[in-house]
Amino acid sequence: MQYMYPLLPRVVAGATSRFNMHLFRAPQTISTRTRPQLGALAPLVRAISFCSLYQQHPACCLATTKTMEADSSAGVAAEVESLRAQIAQLEATLKSKEKELDTVYPYSRSYSKTSVVTILGSEDGGKKLIGQTLRVGGWVKTGREAGAGAFCFLEVNDGSLFESLQVMVPKEVAEEVGGLKALTATGTSVLVEGRLEATPEGTKQPVELKATKIFHVGTCDAATYPIAKKKTSYEFLREKMHLRPRANTLGAVARIRNALAFATHKFFQENGFLYVHTPIITASDCEGAGEMFQVTTLLSKMKEYAGATSVSTEQLETLKAELAAQGEAVKTAKAAAAANKEDKELTAASKAAVDKLLKLKEDFAKAEESSRIVGGIKRLPDGTPDYKEDFFSKPAFLTVSGQLQGEFYASALSNIYTFGPTFRAEYSFTARHLAEFWMIEPEMAFCDLTDDMQCAEDYVRYCCKHLLENCQADLEFINKMVDNTAIARLQQVASTPFKRVSYTEAIDILKDVVARGVKKFEYNVEWGIDLQTEHERYLTEEIFKQPVIVYNYPKDIKAFYMRLNEDGKTVAAMDVLVPKVGELIGGSQREDRLDVLEQRIRDGGMDIAAYEGYLDLRRYGTVPHSGFGLGFERLILFATGLDNIREVIPFPRWPGNASY
Amino acid sequence: MQYMYPLLPRVVAGATSRFNMHLFRAPQTISTRTRPQLGALAPLVRAISFCSLYQQHPACCLATTKTMEADSSAGVAAEVESLRAQIAQLEATLKSKEKELDTVYPYSRSYSKTSVVTILGSEDGGKKLIGQTLRVGGWVKTGREAGAGAFCFLEVNDGSLFESLQVMVPKEVAEEVGGLKALTATGTSVLVEGRLEATPEGTKQPVELKATKIFHVGTCDAATYPIAKKKTSYEFLREKMHLRPRANTLGAVARIRNALAFATHKFFQENGFLYVHTPIITASDCEGAGEMFQVTTLLSKMKEYAGATSVSTEQLETLKAELAAQGEAVKTAKAAAAANKEDKELTAASKAAVDKLLKLKEDFAKAEESSRIVGGIKRLPDGTPDYKEDFFSKPAFLTVSGQLQGEFYASALSNIYTFGPTFRAEYSFTARHLAEFWMIEPEMAFCDLTDDMQCAEDYVRYCCKHLLENCQADLEFINKMVDNTAIARLQQVASTPFKRVSYTEAIDILKDVVARGVKKFEYNVEWGIDLQTEHERYLTEEIFKQPVIVYNYPKDIKAFYMRLNEDGKTVAAMDVLVPKVGELIGGSQREDRLDVLEQRIRDGGMDIAAYEGYLDLRRYGTVPHSGFGLGFERLILFATGLDNIREVIPFPRWPGNASY
Repeated sequence: MQYMYPLLPRVVAGATSRFNMHLFRAPQTISTRTRPQLGALAPLVRAISFCSLYQQHPACCLATTKTMEADSSAGVAAEVESLRAQIAQLEATLKSKEKELDTVYPYSRSYSKTSVVTILGSEDGGKKLIGQTLRVGGWVKTGREAGAGAFCFLEVNDGSLFESLQVMVPKEVAEEVGGLKALTATGTSVLVEGRLEATPEGTKQPVELKATKIFHVGTCDAATYPIAKKKTSYEFLREKMHLRPRANTLGAVARIRNALAFATHKFFQENGFLYVHTPIITASDCEGAGEMFQVTTLLSKMKEYAGATSVSTEQLETLKAELAAQGEAVKTAKAAAAANKEDKELTAASKAAVDKLLKLKEDFAKAEESSRIVGGIKRLPDGTPDYKEDFFSKPAFLTVSGQLQGEFYASALSNIYTFGPTFRAEYSFTARHLAEFWMIEPEMAFCDLTDDMQCAEDYVRYCCKHLLENCQADLEFINKMVDNTAIARLQQVASTPFKRVSYTEAIDILKDVVARGVKKFEYNVEWGIDLQTEHERYLTEEIFKQPVIVYNYPKDIKAFYMRLNEDGKTVAAMDVLVPKVGELIGGSQREDRLDVLEQRIRDGGMDIAAYEGYLDLRRYGTVPHSGFGLGFERLILFATGLDNIREVIPFPRWPGNASY
Repeated sequence: MQYMYPLLPRVVAGATSRFNMHLFRAPQTISTRTRPQLGALAPLVRAISFCSLYQQHPACCLATTKTMEADSSAGVAAEVESLRAQIAQLEATLKSKEKELDTVYPYSRSYSKTSVVTILGSEDGGKKLIGQTLRVGGWVKTGREAGAGAFCFLEVNDGSLFESLQVMVPKEVAEEVGGLKALTATGTSVLVEGRLEATPEGTKQPVELKATKIFHVGTCDAATYPIAKKKTSYEFLREKMHLRPRANTLGAVARIRNALAFATHKFFQENGFLYVHTPIITASDCEGAGEMFQVTTLLSKMKEYAGATSVSTEQLETLKAELAAQGEAVKTAKAAAAANKEDKELTAASKAAVDKLLKLKEDFAKAEESSRIVGGIKRLPDGTPDYKEDFFSKPAFLTVSGQLQGEFYASALSNIYTFGPTFRAEYSFTARHLAEFWMIEPEMAFCDLTDDMQCAEDYVRYCCKHLLENCQADLEFINKMVDNTAIARLQQVASTPFKRVSYTEAIDILKDVVARGVKKFEYNVEWGIDLQTEHERYLTEEIFKQPVIVYNYPKDIKAFYMRLNEDGKTVAAMDVLVPKVGELIGGSQREDRLDVLEQRIRDGGMDIAAYEGYLDLRRYGTVPHSGFGLGFERLILFATGLDNIREVIPFPRWPGNASY
């Protein structure tokens, strides 16, 4: 064991050097990682580095410690004991600080703010945090003084959950920030630190925060605050679009909308679909321009052209005549030169004539250019705008569907979905229409109508299930205040397979109830009609009392691209009908046979040249494929039972309204 | 135990009745659940119901079986044995069928198609499926005949993975669908059934499919197929936008884009952010109209107005004069009546004069209305369009940012993010600009610049990590063919904390390298300048060799809404700079003090009335809040190392180009 002796000091030296290096470097590393605000915790950081040192270099630490013990002098032994005790103590502090950090929202660390959902959203309603000092920040939903002015109660909401946290503020704490009256107005923002305490048995929430310090107050003048009142109408809120999300229902809808959007992404991602961003601006020739918004820079160019001299047709004719006359003059001059046996290009007279001709030509071109500007827009001879002047060099519009581009991608990558905004320039003021709304459009290769229907069903049921699992408090509020069948409807849809009937069966069922005098419809029921909302809702709400998929529609009422069935009179189309809204989803298997598709385009009187790209998919490696479209706001109407679609999108657009 | 005897038959009877009811109902339930195609598996279904019966009613089954045994006659015992054997056998079949179903893509069941990712994407590269009969469907990337025409090899890609599956098709199998030559052309679609077999050691993939039957062929004529060639330029592919996703690089980008989009949603959802759909069409007064696309229905109304008679100013003046003259005529007629002491309203002359006046007034109103239509657009007296005629009753534009509306939501619900399309009508043809692109904009209440920077850093690193974990094959291809530093860059960013320097420090660093002659910049470096891409890239690529966040910029080069720092000359703004692209993210803490914000608006010479909604957030419960914006395509450029932004969005839009 001789070699041990010379080795020991070396190990110790090495350990010490690594030890020191680590101590030197660690605080730097750690403070960067755990944020500058922790800088104040310097001694703690040093201890952490000590612990982490042991984790990273246990051999060195042990060697060091052992050496110390080996020295065995009483002083060193005591030092070791003391160091061990210090480490133990600091480790305990570290754990408690880590726990504290656990409850702080990761991007509100500068304010040490804990989200309300972290407290009330836990299974025990926050009980496990009782006794902890926490800071919450949010807006006062309601506030009231109590105890004869000794304290006040604030319901503080931060949007992370439907529920607000009750905060009790003693008078003396409030006084530092202007007194109790400065806090209780609805809409006031606060950042409050306090101790989480248990509430008496039977209280709605098991915990409340007893304020010890208030770090921030954003006042809110009840006299001018537009939504200070407890009850306001949806119509009124639409006029205050920027403050509307502070209303209970709109806040709940925002969380429900968020949950359904994420459920959408999760469902398709879990099933191997690729999210494709189809374009918003489109100049595709196969989109009909009817009811589309045009996207242009022509109108903003009007100013630029405002200064342009206007040239009338008469002025232009005059210039044209002058030009013709000068042409003759040139000929004459040249002929004269030729007669004089001079170089016809070089005589002063012919040169002058040619120069004048060129000048006139230039003037004419400018005048012609100017004459094309009418009302600030350059025109073609027929008076229509010259779209070469527009940004995209041709008319461009806002998309009405991503299906075309979705098919392009599905014909390369098999399973894709879109989720994006879609537009209709329809002068509709109903509770079911928006000029701007969001659509989900999956498209699947090697997929027929049966699989298409299955996908639609699975997707809708997945969304319902996700919502029930993730938005309980919001749904309970909706169920109480908006539609007391909302939760039951979601539960039924989540748990029951959809009914499937062919269009022909559906018509027979409807004709039967009419014949038996059970039900009268506004619109007549006959094979070949397009089902109206009244028919759709009767089927799903009264006949089947559950979601139902109607498939194989007459070809004449459906789009040209839907696959023609063997019977020659129906197409492989399907609509998913649900209680409360009627049609939620429309989809189809696409016509994948080149010749059949071409015939359908021709039969529809459409210009086949406009569909070349679409036909290419059938020319080059065609595959059977299907897809569907779901109006996202319809899904939210279905989930919440709200009546007006303007409440389920943050900033609704309809004719005459595009505020914010 | 006397009571046992009479009870037994009752249990058995009850069991049998429940048993029968179950057998009767179960096939119905199961066939609906497992799809009509399984109808052919009727005997199996019966067996499944048998098993499920046992699972649901074990007590009844046991009672039945025990009774049978209790009877103890040899016949029944044999029957029991036989039933047990049958069940065991069917359970085995069930398991194997379930396993088969496991590999089938859930929405390609009609075609029994297995995704290539299910085979090659598994850890063992598909080895565990060897021996199974599978069907794959997709497009032939490359095909070649081999074995002197005895068979062919097809590389079949279905987009579920970068890799293609090798399929070996014997001549005799190919003959049913037109022979080997009908299959090998690039772009041909196939649905092939075969047996998965092991490939010889050293082959790229451990498995290949040996075809036994081909169910579908979509031919692809190599002579006309635009992207038949192996190598095509990006420029050429942009002209074939509808077929472009079939190219290797574009397919890889589609999967990378999808992964980054889902990572985005996951990151923000996991951190308690709500996804808010801010509007695309906006008529908000505080958006500057410069470089914005206008959304209008005025141009499509031109046709409607084309028939309107044009009325010149002269004609209008003439009508005005007539109107004035007739006014005088009425006065004269009435005066004459009064002079005759007749009722001035009732004489024939005055009545006729008034009637004529009314008629002239009507004509004038019509003419005035007509005179307002210039070039098919109704105008205001100053010649600008009368926007009361437009869809939204005022000028509307495509959004350039969702920040305004994001702040509205964050001031109610704390933490939100947007992820949607954004637009710039900028005549830019560079490789870094698009007219339509996607942006991610989080906004956080009770969040200062430090937390804002942390969020930006965490988000970017999360995306890199997610990509490395989910797109390995795509990244390897990108690394090999596009940018051989791509993977290393992602790994570095995923694992290294970002460097943070103040703007002032950054300027000092840059001035120093200039002073020392280490580097020359095109743009001069001086405190107060806006950092150029050359400066940004030098900082991140040369100085720090990692992502760096520059913060606290001079107020004069940043937007009015950024929070003024204590020094009065900088604002709490930050930019995240990354190698390869320079600025990836721009963000700031927002000015939450009403008076300071109002002053900043006034100092900027802007119209304070246009910002009332924005100021309301500071009037009613203001909170410190921050946010940032990330251009999604920039993130993809960073991840892939591609040079042109037109390759990283499915349908790029730039001046003159909006195809499909």
